[in-house]
Amino acid sequence: MKLYYSPGACSMGIHIILEELGKPYELSLVALKDGAQHKPDFLAVNPKSKVPALDRGDGKVLTEFPVIAWWLAKANPAAALIPADLEGEARCLELLDYVCGTIHPQAFTRQFRPGNYTLREEDFPKSVELGKANADKYFATLEKGWAGGTYLLPSGYSVADAALFFVEYWATRRSGLTLPPHLAAHLAAMLARPAVQRALTQEGLAL
Amino acid sequence: MKLYYSPGACSMGIHIILEELGKPYELSLVALKDGAQHKPDFLAVNPKSKVPALDRGDGKVLTEFPVIAWWLAKANPAAALIPADLEGEARCLELLDYVCGTIHPQAFTRQFRPGNYTLREEDFPKSVELGKANADKYFATLEKGWAGGTYLLPSGYSVADAALFFVEYWATRRSGLTLPPHLAAHLAAMLARPAVQRALTQEGLAL
Repeated sequence: MKLYYSPGACSMGIHIILEELGKPYELSLVALKDGAQHKPDFLAVNPKSKVPALDRGDGKVLTEFPVIAWWLAKANPAAALIPADLEGEARCLELLDYVCGTIHPQAFTRQFRPGNYTLREEDFPKSVELGKANADKYFATLEKGWAGGTYLLPSGYSVADAALFFVEYWATRRSGLTLPPHLAAHLAAMLARPAVQRALTQEGLAL
Repeated sequence: MKLYYSPGACSMGIHIILEELGKPYELSLVALKDGAQHKPDFLAVNPKSKVPALDRGDGKVLTEFPVIAWWLAKANPAAALIPADLEGEARCLELLDYVCGTIHPQAFTRQFRPGNYTLREEDFPKSVELGKANADKYFATLEKGWAGGTYLLPSGYSVADAALFFVEYWATRRSGLTLPPHLAAHLAAMLARPAVQRALTQEGLAL
């Protein structure tokens, strides 16, 4: 398998899941800052111009963070990275979609690429401010509905935790936000996992 | 079951799936134009202030379009609305996420709620224009990668088609866009399905 990633991008969540699985894989850098995602080499991999993308080694590429995470968990049932029952699996997918479909774009893309959310450079600070306010609101929603213990799901660690991790990491390392108690404890527990430490180190990121 | 919906919103895709299943359900209107999604009654249902939300009648509410669609298909296997193999299921989820996580917000929310994508009212026309250009780009990506026959997946009709339908409906009925050939044929096939006709009629929408 080969993971197309950019250091510190949301692909770090899939990188963590691959480290948790412990199966062989390679990393392939897509330099988002140089626009590599829009160049022909990468368009042949993922015409949607996004990381993460996972080449599964069977000539087929899978895209969309929630789907790659879900597929890795389902294809490797012994690792128990997703609940085996339909209800637990649905809640895992629901959290993956909330992080990747709402929190990432509406809170963090607004901060990190304000040009996607306003057409004028003089409004960038306002976009950053709105992104931070959204992050606080979404994190408060997660905190209030927290159903798990240390991890998101009552059944324990799952691929949804790798998604929550990347937004918690951005919130604290890049945005200077303070997490509510469950999320702060979750971030600390994630940072203590060897798989997380290996993925961050490989991407050149501070723990 | 009870579907929280707004007429003509993306919830119409879930409405169609419920009609395909033919099991009893109720509709509960959430008037997005009046901001009902932000009021306490609905926040108690879905603190994320979004439709669709599905009350499954067991006291539990499921949110996020791709997850509701996937769950309805998985919980009703006799209806065969999702491939039974892991690879087909992954491709179905991947299409659901592309429609709901990229095409809906980046192409259509940009047009229908330009204030989410620009901070100045005088820039709204530019946001609408960008949304239309994105729609054309995303539809071209789907057209080029079309793997199915009439429907999106080679295995035939699935819940992913109900998602593609709502953006095709918006594109042609609200945005005045022209769909590429596979998508135009897909829209026509969807409009010929009795379940789609029933859902549209119930929402007061033209076929």
